[in-house]
Amino acid sequence: MENRVAYCVSDHTGVTVEAVANSVLSQFPAFEFSLIVLPFVDSAAKARNVAAQIAASPGALVFSTLTDPVLRSILHNARLNLFDVFELFAPPVEGVLGQSATPSGGRTHGMANDYESRMDAVNFALNLDDGLNPERLDQADLILVGVSRVGKTPSALYLALQYGLRTANYPLTPDDLARDSLPEVLLAHLPRLRGLTLSAERLAAIRQVRYPDSRYASLQQCREEITAAERLFERHNLPVIDTTRMSVEEIAARLRLRP
Amino acid sequence: MENRVAYCVSDHTGVTVEAVANSVLSQFPAFEFSLIVLPFVDSAAKARNVAAQIAASPGALVFSTLTDPVLRSILHNARLNLFDVFELFAPPVEGVLGQSATPSGGRTHGMANDYESRMDAVNFALNLDDGLNPERLDQADLILVGVSRVGKTPSALYLALQYGLRTANYPLTPDDLARDSLPEVLLAHLPRLRGLTLSAERLAAIRQVRYPDSRYASLQQCREEITAAERLFERHNLPVIDTTRMSVEEIAARLRLRP
Repeated sequence: MENRVAYCVSDHTGVTVEAVANSVLSQFPAFEFSLIVLPFVDSAAKARNVAAQIAASPGALVFSTLTDPVLRSILHNARLNLFDVFELFAPPVEGVLGQSATPSGGRTHGMANDYESRMDAVNFALNLDDGLNPERLDQADLILVGVSRVGKTPSALYLALQYGLRTANYPLTPDDLARDSLPEVLLAHLPRLRGLTLSAERLAAIRQVRYPDSRYASLQQCREEITAAERLFERHNLPVIDTTRMSVEEIAARLRLRP
Repeated sequence: MENRVAYCVSDHTGVTVEAVANSVLSQFPAFEFSLIVLPFVDSAAKARNVAAQIAASPGALVFSTLTDPVLRSILHNARLNLFDVFELFAPPVEGVLGQSATPSGGRTHGMANDYESRMDAVNFALNLDDGLNPERLDQADLILVGVSRVGKTPSALYLALQYGLRTANYPLTPDDLARDSLPEVLLAHLPRLRGLTLSAERLAAIRQVRYPDSRYASLQQCREEITAAERLFERHNLPVIDTTRMSVEEIAARLRLRP
């Protein structure tokens, strides 16, 4: 497998350009790429430094979301293998909109704008983590339910951070699972409940890391809990997501689809 | 201001294509765009549905990260204002690499791969939130310090979720601030400490939301705490980030720059 370095240059965080580079480069499986993100390249001096750094790495690819014409020309003049997001997208979008692009220095509005609501959602997710403060469940956009270690907390935090959704999570304990119905406190909120499940094998592996050789982490215990949880989800007709092969981004994007 | 709808079509979460659309469209400030994300478009039937939905919205823009040739051709044949990330990037990257792209169905590796380490980092950030479990600070990649409500917790969670960095956070209380030195428990970890600060006005506004008209939320109290915290950061020579005008993505990307 051939190794290549790919630089991701941005005048802001670099999150977008890194995602684009990952997405494009995943279409070239014969190569192994080492990504180097160079964020906050927002002056001519920094752009010259970056251009010199990249030029010292022969064969490197360069993805850039720089928009300032001065900074872009510095990269262009350095004779790099440059894939300039702005240059590729601006002309066709200009054609459709009938207006020229106004290089604005890379503000990605729609991100920072909703900062307050996302921070509020994160605080909400923390305050209603793992069944805490159930009297506030009526304020939740979504309530994730499932057995211990099924991935409720990271999913709730990601939904809050990425999408600004006030997401609570509520654990199903073995006591809850022994009953015929979801916990009483959840019944008033059925339309906003989402069930999380995963394979018993995967759950056991996750629990083993924390509590090796415990009954809690045994395959049999995990099987029983998962089976009982899925029966409850079905009884109450909850939308269910099987997270066995999913990243937290994917779980969150799917949960968001039917809010 | 003219309104336009922009669809973001993906066979996966849509996070990348939404980021690209936001970035590109922010260069056209004369328009107000409504973004509609259509994730998990991973079959011909779904692609046909999506194409019909978009065609019913005249003048809409369409950003797509679909890679499967069958799905892409369905969008292409629908005569949309289509900006196809794959079509724009693949040819120039193929030219540099000397190989054809292999449409892989949009797996963005480098994301799902490190799922375990990111989930571990999230659990770590939660377990070491707000000064909890200080005996585990030696396991941290980064330790954020600052006064109450300066943004430590969301920043730590974002660093964990996005970058897999095990990030603790530790609050500076008025008692801590009255001393000449950072809390004893932090002194063994100076190279991994990062100071967070923000303007006293912004801090007071944030605290007011939760505790209106309290001494805690008063501008004078906020000024005193911020001044004392910045003095401590300087005394111990900590890298400091002023979060006043930053999104959580930007804070995290800057903190990650010198890990």
